[in-house]
Amino acid sequence: MTTYSIDVTLSQTKKEKPQSDQLQFGKVFTDHMFIMDYTEGQGWHDARIVPYQPITLDPASMIFHYGQSVFEGLKAYVTKKEQVLLFRPDENFKRLNKSNDRLCIPHVDENLALEALKQLIKIDREWIPTAEGTSLYIRPFVIATEPYLGVAPSDRYQFIIILSPVGSYYKEGIAPVKIAVESEFVRAVAGGTGTAKTGGNYASSLKAQQLSDSKGYSQVLWLDGVERKYIEEVGSMNIFFKIDGEVVTPSVNGSILEGITRKSIIELLKHWDMPVTERRISMEEIKQAYSEGKLEEAFGTGTAAVISPIGELFWNNEKMVINDGNTGEVSQKLYDTLTGIQNGTVEDPFGWAVEVE
Amino acid sequence: MTTYSIDVTLSQTKKEKPQSDQLQFGKVFTDHMFIMDYTEGQGWHDARIVPYQPITLDPASMIFHYGQSVFEGLKAYVTKKEQVLLFRPDENFKRLNKSNDRLCIPHVDENLALEALKQLIKIDREWIPTAEGTSLYIRPFVIATEPYLGVAPSDRYQFIIILSPVGSYYKEGIAPVKIAVESEFVRAVAGGTGTAKTGGNYASSLKAQQLSDSKGYSQVLWLDGVERKYIEEVGSMNIFFKIDGEVVTPSVNGSILEGITRKSIIELLKHWDMPVTERRISMEEIKQAYSEGKLEEAFGTGTAAVISPIGELFWNNEKMVINDGNTGEVSQKLYDTLTGIQNGTVEDPFGWAVEVE
Repeated sequence: MTTYSIDVTLSQTKKEKPQSDQLQFGKVFTDHMFIMDYTEGQGWHDARIVPYQPITLDPASMIFHYGQSVFEGLKAYVTKKEQVLLFRPDENFKRLNKSNDRLCIPHVDENLALEALKQLIKIDREWIPTAEGTSLYIRPFVIATEPYLGVAPSDRYQFIIILSPVGSYYKEGIAPVKIAVESEFVRAVAGGTGTAKTGGNYASSLKAQQLSDSKGYSQVLWLDGVERKYIEEVGSMNIFFKIDGEVVTPSVNGSILEGITRKSIIELLKHWDMPVTERRISMEEIKQAYSEGKLEEAFGTGTAAVISPIGELFWNNEKMVINDGNTGEVSQKLYDTLTGIQNGTVEDPFGWAVEVE
Repeated sequence: MTTYSIDVTLSQTKKEKPQSDQLQFGKVFTDHMFIMDYTEGQGWHDARIVPYQPITLDPASMIFHYGQSVFEGLKAYVTKKEQVLLFRPDENFKRLNKSNDRLCIPHVDENLALEALKQLIKIDREWIPTAEGTSLYIRPFVIATEPYLGVAPSDRYQFIIILSPVGSYYKEGIAPVKIAVESEFVRAVAGGTGTAKTGGNYASSLKAQQLSDSKGYSQVLWLDGVERKYIEEVGSMNIFFKIDGEVVTPSVNGSILEGITRKSIIELLKHWDMPVTERRISMEEIKQAYSEGKLEEAFGTGTAAVISPIGELFWNNEKMVINDGNTGEVSQKLYDTLTGIQNGTVEDPFGWAVEVE
């Protein structure tokens, strides 16, 4: 096993940790962060853990102008036996490099990144909250830092990992949400950056989200940008439906994000011998299934919520209430199993949970 | 006329200015910059001109994660009579706010922005290069600065203007370039952010640009993301063709950028009583016109190059050489007139040139 040289500078002071029941999402950060620099010709260098601190950049740095950036999101949990677990972190760093490819950013050494993450978590271990449903959210990201206004790949980057203790996504148990199908705005199209985890995809989603908020819906369901017929994602999550006993999800088509929770759910359903299919799904089909009483469940999937059941879908001035607005049986079972594997209370036959240390 | 309160702190030291003949694009910046902050509830505040300096931001700042940003680009010129001229700056700040709308960023006061720009230019006036073809490139931009990892519009922003003396785009006179039609990657699609000047559009263009570079083409020609048939833009410029005596350009369709140079060219051609039409243009039509000997000229338009003639177009394994690879008559006339109005050597019947002071 390679040993990586990561320089460590510990913080002289420790910040106050928030109460478990006051945790929000992504607002409070731990005492340390990981940074590594890239310089053309030299490659990635100066891997270091330092006290959490501001980033200082020239105002001409490309990240401020041309959006050349990628990121990841994953979580760490403390088990009842005081183990620290990560959920499939190798998948996150593999995807980071796929995003890097699309954005013309040099690859990061995936093993070094995982090693750096583990060291960082060990240093800030006390920050991992232990209450039910809480976790340590991990945000690795890369930004283009060359001070140059030409439209070209940067010759300098920073790879950074920051950590944030986060509360339970569901304050009072898993709860279905209302979703509006988006007809005006488009998230991504094949040939664009939809499969990459890059800032621009999220910036472009804000407007539709803001408009749907104002109408009382918590997320939008994105349709494809070409025919405006086929289902892509919900908010910043992948989406699944249970129709007449079969679980279906949009196939990887060059515009949706290849979610790690999505992938895990497909593997889990197969493991359970439940029918699951990746294919193109039109809103027309969903409407038809609903009319025939065959639309049994719908849910979004992602790192933040794990499973987010959809209780109501609004499309073409019509409201579809799914499973009487309640969490479906399969949705609940997937949520319980995945969160159980993540926090070590459910057996993990897949080796998805990776122990830190 | 409203007077705006802009606090000024002058730099104690002055940087060395580059030689006129050594100027590149966007690599060197002047002694000062303009900054203004936005805080939810308080609006835009603390408008100030300060010495050019790094920006210091929390690593969780949204600009590093979700790409919520917009920018503009325009130029200042010194005339032979020592006047400083801006080209249609009101159009840039109007478009900045259109981009802000799309990206859920609060509007900037356009008059304040113009006033701030004028004050900044006056302070850094000595930085405006005077040699033929040189100018002062102006980059206003807005970035989301709230340290929060939730996907939502930021509650804090910075609006910044930086200035960079730039060399002539054409070192040895205006020269036609080779362009490859892009068949894999897509720049933008209606419902996305293509009409906004936001980082994500540029980040997404890097990959295609990198691949076309490696094949010896200087830019890509983007087709629409839906049918992959219709012409959108070239590189980060708008595009025009002269076919059988008529000038045509893709109409504003929800995915192309509404270029200020594009708009000026249309107005100029109309002023000259030359036929000009905004409409949908397919590559098939261009190929057909070429085969019939009717494709007379092609050129890109934008702030950096003003006019960039296209000498060769590569599509479907076929090479089309336009006007024998030379700059066309209309392209040259547009270039001479526009740059003449910009630097004060040609009469400006439109009032496009705005004097600073």
